[in-house]
Amino acid sequence: MIFDFPIIKNGKMPLYLQLYKNLRGSIRDGRLEAGARIPAIREMKEITGLSRTTIENAYQQLMMEGYIESRHKVGYFVLPLEIAEPPSPDFLVSEDQESYRREGKRVRNAGIDPNSFDFSLWRKLLAQVLREENEELNRSGDVTGEMALKQQLRDQLRRDRGVNCSPDQIVIGAGVQVLLGMLLPMLPKEMRRVGVEDPGFVKAQYVFEDYGWEIVKIPLVDGGIDVKQLKETKSRLAYVSPSHQYPTGTVMPVAKREDLLRWAEEEQGLIVEDDYDSYLRYAGNPIPALQGMDQGDRVIYLGSFSKLLLPALRISYMILPRPLLRAFQEKKNRLTPSASKLDQLTLARFMQEGHYERHLRRIRKIYRKKNLLLTEFLAKEAGDLVSVLGIESGVHLVLEIKREVSLDQIMKKARAKGIDLERIGSVRSAHQRLLFPYSGIALAEMDGVQKDLLEILKGSESDDGANERAESSGDRESKDSKTGK
Amino acid sequence: MIFDFPIIKNGKMPLYLQLYKNLRGSIRDGRLEAGARIPAIREMKEITGLSRTTIENAYQQLMMEGYIESRHKVGYFVLPLEIAEPPSPDFLVSEDQESYRREGKRVRNAGIDPNSFDFSLWRKLLAQVLREENEELNRSGDVTGEMALKQQLRDQLRRDRGVNCSPDQIVIGAGVQVLLGMLLPMLPKEMRRVGVEDPGFVKAQYVFEDYGWEIVKIPLVDGGIDVKQLKETKSRLAYVSPSHQYPTGTVMPVAKREDLLRWAEEEQGLIVEDDYDSYLRYAGNPIPALQGMDQGDRVIYLGSFSKLLLPALRISYMILPRPLLRAFQEKKNRLTPSASKLDQLTLARFMQEGHYERHLRRIRKIYRKKNLLLTEFLAKEAGDLVSVLGIESGVHLVLEIKREVSLDQIMKKARAKGIDLERIGSVRSAHQRLLFPYSGIALAEMDGVQKDLLEILKGSESDDGANERAESSGDRESKDSKTGK
Repeated sequence: MIFDFPIIKNGKMPLYLQLYKNLRGSIRDGRLEAGARIPAIREMKEITGLSRTTIENAYQQLMMEGYIESRHKVGYFVLPLEIAEPPSPDFLVSEDQESYRREGKRVRNAGIDPNSFDFSLWRKLLAQVLREENEELNRSGDVTGEMALKQQLRDQLRRDRGVNCSPDQIVIGAGVQVLLGMLLPMLPKEMRRVGVEDPGFVKAQYVFEDYGWEIVKIPLVDGGIDVKQLKETKSRLAYVSPSHQYPTGTVMPVAKREDLLRWAEEEQGLIVEDDYDSYLRYAGNPIPALQGMDQGDRVIYLGSFSKLLLPALRISYMILPRPLLRAFQEKKNRLTPSASKLDQLTLARFMQEGHYERHLRRIRKIYRKKNLLLTEFLAKEAGDLVSVLGIESGVHLVLEIKREVSLDQIMKKARAKGIDLERIGSVRSAHQRLLFPYSGIALAEMDGVQKDLLEILKGSESDDGANERAESSGDRESKDSKTGK
Repeated sequence: MIFDFPIIKNGKMPLYLQLYKNLRGSIRDGRLEAGARIPAIREMKEITGLSRTTIENAYQQLMMEGYIESRHKVGYFVLPLEIAEPPSPDFLVSEDQESYRREGKRVRNAGIDPNSFDFSLWRKLLAQVLREENEELNRSGDVTGEMALKQQLRDQLRRDRGVNCSPDQIVIGAGVQVLLGMLLPMLPKEMRRVGVEDPGFVKAQYVFEDYGWEIVKIPLVDGGIDVKQLKETKSRLAYVSPSHQYPTGTVMPVAKREDLLRWAEEEQGLIVEDDYDSYLRYAGNPIPALQGMDQGDRVIYLGSFSKLLLPALRISYMILPRPLLRAFQEKKNRLTPSASKLDQLTLARFMQEGHYERHLRRIRKIYRKKNLLLTEFLAKEAGDLVSVLGIESGVHLVLEIKREVSLDQIMKKARAKGIDLERIGSVRSAHQRLLFPYSGIALAEMDGVQKDLLEILKGSESDDGANERAESSGDRESKDSKTGK
């Protein structure tokens, strides 16, 4: 019986407050829906054994707060929750889903290409693993990841990215944030200052913050982090994305890479190389990973399958330099696994049978085509409105807006059309830059998105941008869409 | 060509050191295997363009360190890695796998029951999700978890555990450690002292440590944490497992639960309720969760599917009290998802179609039977050697060894027979207690395991336990096998 709440008679909490909280709880969590009848005071007295005054006090409180109403001669009834409470926090749905629901639209440009992933093949491999590896699946996985996957990864990273490592240097985790959460507590306390690229991948910076690290933002010069400034910060850890800087898309030149490695040697420091989407390169030679140049065990390599394979899978990896292995071994007994063992074993088969190589070739082709279509279109139709940066790799473009307009306004208009754009850097940044992911646009939809984008960019000319701009709140960071990283 | 290393001529690192490190790297990561021939100095000179002295220096260093050897008049050859280096750290395989490999045995008692999980049903549901939810799978999941699963969880936790919440209070993550990593940075800095049960779940404590919290161990009295001592610590967070204390298996009485809730109200504190395996209860009434008694929004509820469903899946959940939702909303934009969306959507279907309820009923029956067999056997055959505690629920027993023996010795002997036992509490603990998981023992294997266990316990009588005991290192903690939690 729903109103038969447990009441603690000799507790410190007044009885009316207990009843009030019980009822409020039932209304909030939906057991008592809007319109439901609450027992009259007399009935409630019988159900609970509480006094009339106690019940009246509880009901008064609920009415005051807008949870219930009294209808004359009829009784008490639950009100719709919106009346009682401020709109419920929107954290229960992602931005994507939320805008989808609110506007009846799906986001058209984020996520992976809708035709890139071979679901039936994955289904087949999953079925194989479920049939053949029962015993493995019945016990928990290795906290550092499954050996079968690590062996595949070692071979593939050597081949495609010039990464040198043995499988025992690889740690698998459910996302780059989880991996950083394993790494940071291993590093010496006196190291807790990190130099990061500005702009850079803020979701990595958040993890450093959470672990109490000081974050020093270092501007980009000549294709990458300013090594001279990095040196001046006296930090001993740098977080960089040398092969495809996030978000600007630049490539760190070899000379700077050498400077950076030398810096690490001299400071007895470490470099975290975030190599998040360097497979997707459309122009020039492939850029090998910094890790492959490292002779001094100074580079921690980070990578992820989310952008490249399927965002629904959460498999990322970190390659530790050998001197960190001993520290990690100590740490290892403190950890539990995070990435799904089922997904890991399936991915290992996917790689072993050559499907991953084929998949990479296919998506490189798809994304190159989109990249080309978009950059040509923007150059031709919107050359006076935007410069397009970061076009040589990855799955997003950087739109540098050429005049003083409200980026917030542009983002809002884009969102209304199901297009996600994101501000790069802070509101006060010298540049007016927006990040425009194009991975999720189906080729068939490309024309429509282009047309809408042009309209948004053109429409913004007539707006009073400066006004809007002042409204936006403070030094807000780019929200950073790489949730899948 | 493998010996054509990149050499930086004007770099700060001496040339011989560069060559040495390149060669060492190739040997370490297996590109140069034991027995492989290294080019003679003259050949290497041609390949690299380096001077004779440089190459000789590099080879000297490698020989000195045991990576290569010079065979007179034949050349230089790579030595087996064991000679050059201390045995490679064992972190690359879990303890289970390691002992399996080393001893050619599998662990017989850990993991879930080998016949409990319906793999073909799961395969069917996975296939459905992969066929029907392509669009969902192509984009990254909600950082708080999939709504479909949260709705199922809400209903199921209400029904089975008396938990009150709405789906928006639920956060899904890839393990309890990941969830704590989301929670702790949200809590006010001045709160950073936590009272924990002693003995308790140390893998949770590690996360607190990593985030810089002070940990105060509080003894168990009368079926749970000593609330009076908790109060004296002036901490405002308590981490408890009230419905099935880990590892001792006691149940916190209602009066203590009320004390604990009152403590939280008075101190403006919070309680983390780790409800990790309370579904499995074999005697007495089901014990509802503490969360359901909480009238003051003081309880954070933690649960996991690893023990109950399949360790290969990494899906755990946390229920936040409403006052924390606002703080979490801020935090949310900083996070990326961790639990596989594919697994989450499959689990949601599994629950929605009633399979989870049936699964729980089935495993309760299986584990009850094992529990009964073991406790009866131990009472009858080993009553003079051990007392058995924690028999009313869960999937492990606590063996309290009645005489002064070496627990390390017992554990070692057990391991040789493929039986995992773990020390509870520190080496200096007043009690001689071992944790004995029985979930993984197939019913058909039960007789064999019982026989072996008896032999191990009996054998230990003749050992000089005191000797061995002094050898074991310091105040080491229980290793805690709940990696799957």
